Amino acid sequence: MKGNVLVGQSGGPTAAINSSLAGVYCTAKELGADKVYGMRYGIEGLIEGKYIDLSEHLENELDVETLKRTPSAYLGSCRYKLPKVEDNKEVYDKIFEIIDKLNIEVFIYIGGNDSMDTISKLSAYAAEIGHAARFIGCPKTIDNDLALTDHTPGFGSAAKYIATSVKEVICDNNCLQYGKGLVTIIEVMGRNAGWLTGSAALCQGEDCEGPDMIYLPEITFDMEKFLAKVKGLLAEKSSVVVVVSEGIKLADGRYVCELGSNTDFVDAFGHKQLSGTASYLAGFIGGSLGCKTRAIEFSTLQRAGSHMSSKADIEEAFQAGSAAVSAGVQGESAKMVVFERISETPYLCGTGLRDVHKIANDEKVVPREWVNEEGTYVTEEFAAYARPLIQGEVIPVMVNGVPRHLNKAR
Amino acid sequence: MKGNVLVGQSGGPTAAINSSLAGVYCTAKELGADKVYGMRYGIEGLIEGKYIDLSEHLENELDVETLKRTPSAYLGSCRYKLPKVEDNKEVYDKIFEIIDKLNIEVFIYIGGNDSMDTISKLSAYAAEIGHAARFIGCPKTIDNDLALTDHTPGFGSAAKYIATSVKEVICDNNCLQYGKGLVTIIEVMGRNAGWLTGSAALCQGEDCEGPDMIYLPEITFDMEKFLAKVKGLLAEKSSVVVVVSEGIKLADGRYVCELGSNTDFVDAFGHKQLSGTASYLAGFIGGSLGCKTRAIEFSTLQRAGSHMSSKADIEEAFQAGSAAVSAGVQGESAKMVVFERISETPYLCGTGLRDVHKIANDEKVVPREWVNEEGTYVTEEFAAYARPLIQGEVIPVMVNGVPRHLNKAR
Repeated sequence: MKGNVLVGQSGGPTAAINSSLAGVYCTAKELGADKVYGMRYGIEGLIEGKYIDLSEHLENELDVETLKRTPSAYLGSCRYKLPKVEDNKEVYDKIFEIIDKLNIEVFIYIGGNDSMDTISKLSAYAAEIGHAARFIGCPKTIDNDLALTDHTPGFGSAAKYIATSVKEVICDNNCLQYGKGLVTIIEVMGRNAGWLTGSAALCQGEDCEGPDMIYLPEITFDMEKFLAKVKGLLAEKSSVVVVVSEGIKLADGRYVCELGSNTDFVDAFGHKQLSGTASYLAGFIGGSLGCKTRAIEFSTLQRAGSHMSSKADIEEAFQAGSAAVSAGVQGESAKMVVFERISETPYLCGTGLRDVHKIANDEKVVPREWVNEEGTYVTEEFAAYARPLIQGEVIPVMVNGVPRHLNKAR
Repeated sequence: MKGNVLVGQSGGPTAAINSSLAGVYCTAKELGADKVYGMRYGIEGLIEGKYIDLSEHLENELDVETLKRTPSAYLGSCRYKLPKVEDNKEVYDKIFEIIDKLNIEVFIYIGGNDSMDTISKLSAYAAEIGHAARFIGCPKTIDNDLALTDHTPGFGSAAKYIATSVKEVICDNNCLQYGKGLVTIIEVMGRNAGWLTGSAALCQGEDCEGPDMIYLPEITFDMEKFLAKVKGLLAEKSSVVVVVSEGIKLADGRYVCELGSNTDFVDAFGHKQLSGTASYLAGFIGGSLGCKTRAIEFSTLQRAGSHMSSKADIEEAFQAGSAAVSAGVQGESAKMVVFERISETPYLCGTGLRDVHKIANDEKVVPREWVNEEGTYVTEEFAAYARPLIQGEVIPVMVNGVPRHLNKAR
């Protein structure tokens, strides 16, 4: 390639987004890029002129390996919605000024739905003004809700962390006997898509019965049916474990978490901030049945749990970054790298490219047929789909008893 | 040895208590015990006649290795306070009847303060009636609050999980910029002793600044000083991370968590159930400063996180179980196995025996000089003490992408 590469990370971080950054860097260097620049804090930082030369950060192979084991977004991230050109052309002028100044041939943005909107807008604008730079999206989200791709880097590692942690909680609960029973409600991220919540089922095996119920945001939640189900289970066993999505809603459209609090925080994209679902349901069950309850929220641990990341995921994230650079160098633009599953057994997956305009702002949810009729558990089809994505481990580099992260950018 | 061994697990489970069980089993077999019996659900289950023959559960070396990697209490646990002989002699009669029936030479109870009370009472009763069985306590608690021992098996693994998770949360937080800042409050177990909470400092290193503040239950908590400190930090940085013990108290003696809720649940030992400290403080900070806040409770994950257990801890737990059997066989009774630190660098530790009557119902807290003057962080002495205990890893046996546990007892 003749020009340079500019890469940014956007949206909520994952355990795999830095592996995609490593993939971008290594492949760009291999393909002859003189410089690989990284936006600080995504497009928002770039507009303020903040970027770094990645060569100064990834000085050797060990740096690259450590980066792949580092959670969060190494470059910094943002939640910034690019305005439409007609509303604010100056922002576009600023971005393209930096692109020209840095001699950028390929612009890569690693992110989810909202980030693909950025690639969509920038590539459309470049086409409009006849600019030669190419704009490629690299998928990332623990939510696995991007359209047109089999799955999304970041999901597998979060799913592995969740399946492992749910398994440990179930095991822990089983050792004590509780007079009126113990009901544990575990809350998992995923506003509208239940991929992560469903992954809790992956802890099921010869040594673990799995959670008793799994409630996805795709299925309307019924408080009375839930209560009856818990009551029935408590008649049979001492510990009941329920996994719920933060985004479960009642028939009237209200989020369950809204029943418990008055907070109404909305982020830059107009999304409501959800939290407190488990805590509300634990209170509801305890109050109704008089049993002991426990609410567990995995919070940001589920997206930052690099110490339990999936090898399949970390390698595919690297591959996605690599494919994004290659696509751009080959002249592609306005595309997002996608994963295409070639075979289920053995699991084989390759990358492809899809029109980013068709992906942006769209959400892929769990198909109804992958949830049981009652809406209280995922099916074996769901597990067969998700299981390959949590296979293998990337052993952390341990220093002084804790995992070492790459942290030169701060 | 001529007779058999009876072993029980008691109190809150840990990631290491099953390694002590493995140590008891292997050493008892080595020393010639015909049978090693395990109480189901501790002394409470034993009184109901519930026990198992451990040979049927630990059939080969792989079973033993898997047991060492299994969280929770394999045999089941209980929170049962043995009555005084004068209040309920029948309970003692029942226990000694089973001891005679099973030809028990050594009775081992793996647990914390309350469990040592059981060993204390049973050994005293045996001495009174002239019974030949020996009663040995094997230390276990994530809280590290047992007296007369350098530290307690279970603590190291929980501390390693906490240091790792706090590190990942700090890393995750640093990637986004927050308008008015983000304050994350992480709540750690430990009612009266801050050993676990202080362990969060172990994430500090070349790649991580560590949490901004650490509040132990040993130090009186002042809401106004806390608020001022957070406010000052937010003027300098975007993300502030505070680690608090669930047991922090105000000057008037109230627990901070009591300010937020009306629950007043008390367990069998009269201990208040604490939870919600982080959530209350997050609300307080958000309301006072208008910044974004996040409350994270590690809940039972911190004691069940076998996938991130400390090799030092798992090995010492095994050693403690082993030493308990040896002591009993050598004729010792009314003793608890303790750890004695021989050298700091390199870390060397051996086991010893102490009078269980002097340990039961006593609590070891963090010395005042191991907390800074302001009461907002642990000192380097604390870290030097705790760091050796989180060293090394016990790689989980991974099956289908998740850690395999031993689970034949259920």
